[in-house]
Amino acid sequence: MTPRAFVPGHVTGFFSVHPDDDPVVAGSRGAGLALSDGVTVTADPVASADQRAVELNGETVEMPAVTGVLNRLDAHARVVADTDLPLSAGFGVSGACALGTALSLDAATAGGHTERELVAIAHASEVEAGTGLGDVVGQARGGLPVRLEPGAPPHGYLDGLPARPAVEYVTFGGLDTAAVIGGDTETLSRAGEEALATLRETPTVETFMRAARRFSREASLQTDEVRTAIEAVEAAGGEAAMAMLGQTVFALDDGLSRAGYDARSCRVTDGAALVGE
Amino acid sequence: MTPRAFVPGHVTGFFSVHPDDDPVVAGSRGAGLALSDGVTVTADPVASADQRAVELNGETVEMPAVTGVLNRLDAHARVVADTDLPLSAGFGVSGACALGTALSLDAATAGGHTERELVAIAHASEVEAGTGLGDVVGQARGGLPVRLEPGAPPHGYLDGLPARPAVEYVTFGGLDTAAVIGGDTETLSRAGEEALATLRETPTVETFMRAARRFSREASLQTDEVRTAIEAVEAAGGEAAMAMLGQTVFALDDGLSRAGYDARSCRVTDGAALVGE
Repeated sequence: MTPRAFVPGHVTGFFSVHPDDDPVVAGSRGAGLALSDGVTVTADPVASADQRAVELNGETVEMPAVTGVLNRLDAHARVVADTDLPLSAGFGVSGACALGTALSLDAATAGGHTERELVAIAHASEVEAGTGLGDVVGQARGGLPVRLEPGAPPHGYLDGLPARPAVEYVTFGGLDTAAVIGGDTETLSRAGEEALATLRETPTVETFMRAARRFSREASLQTDEVRTAIEAVEAAGGEAAMAMLGQTVFALDDGLSRAGYDARSCRVTDGAALVGE
Repeated sequence: MTPRAFVPGHVTGFFSVHPDDDPVVAGSRGAGLALSDGVTVTADPVASADQRAVELNGETVEMPAVTGVLNRLDAHARVVADTDLPLSAGFGVSGACALGTALSLDAATAGGHTERELVAIAHASEVEAGTGLGDVVGQARGGLPVRLEPGAPPHGYLDGLPARPAVEYVTFGGLDTAAVIGGDTETLSRAGEEALATLRETPTVETFMRAARRFSREASLQTDEVRTAIEAVEAAGGEAAMAMLGQTVFALDDGLSRAGYDARSCRVTDGAALVGE
């Protein structure tokens, strides 16, 4: 049997952009949540480049972050990924596919890489693909990851909040990650650095949610539907914020249901790992 | 309800001792396994020092590592820990109680510490108590933790092997951790550093098991029963090694059962965390 990896979904609440010519060094500071709704990935080695394929929920797709992992591991594989998460909506599905491919393929080929090496390979591939800056390291750590220094091991540095709350989410559509993180990110990054400073001062889930809400306002990323949902949850006494980068609202506990939304529920969970055979 | 923490058991295969006056900096290099057999801990805040108590499997015990955590968090609590793991046999139960107390008590008191801060508090308390040097950081990380630099955050540095094998273990009795790590550790530490260098060259589970076997021979820690069991597993085609520090043998997959031992089985698992309410 091909070794299988499970990678949690990852929602970023706020972030700042830290470019670098080296994609292992480049990344983001910020904070987010690793979700028990995630992506299951297998990477079956195949003989040649023209047998390579990436399948997401049964459909053949182009996924440059996964291709990058195959290239860095100097391997050909048929990658099969399955997820219930909404796509292109701020859940880090491409990062999950990249990290899951690295974990599964290394196990299938007895590649002999360490966890940090595989995280660095997946992070660099994701950064080069332009599809994410911090999901992979957050997904590897799990919990409520706080990205104190950007980049992958050994450059990045993470801490985490110890809480493991229940989470609900609802999605109104996608946002173009590449357009946002490839555009003018000065205002966004300043707001992200302020949010991180606030969280470091009082590292609690409540501070995180408040800082994330303020960030999405200051970075002018909220759409009307997102703003309405966040306000509805607050009006019902809950805590909600926007997922970076998607038209997605997440809330603690049953905050969205109580505000009348048809939301999916999951939990904050552990980091990515191979699933026991 | 009092927040509950689950901390995996942790078996060290080999290690070297790195003393320091600062217990956050002191620790060990080495490698081990985080086990799905672990310790569940709740820490209920109480009003005063004379109401403090530590209960392990229903019995009141003295546990200096836990007392150290309460002192560092400047709190009084009734700590209740439950485990199926053998005690004083190399599974890191005291480290688990210290880390579980830190996680549970911080949550119960809305203490606002980060994960790394709580790990550092538990590690320092365990080192001061003389009951362990590397269990806490391994238990916090989970998986197959490789301790590249000794000490707790921000001093220590860990990597991990991505494998998640099934594990069996059998225990013939305890070893006095304080006597071994407090005694002459020169030979032991030299063997431990060699084992780590070997593992870093080829970071696989097989290398880990081989390096751990060699370490326990070179450090002259194997008792007769331990040696016999390791040899029996090897004779049956399996992989086994000795747990530091206990008269405990662990094996991959069903290695001990196949060699005729009445062994307990579990899995390599994720790091310590609060259990969802």
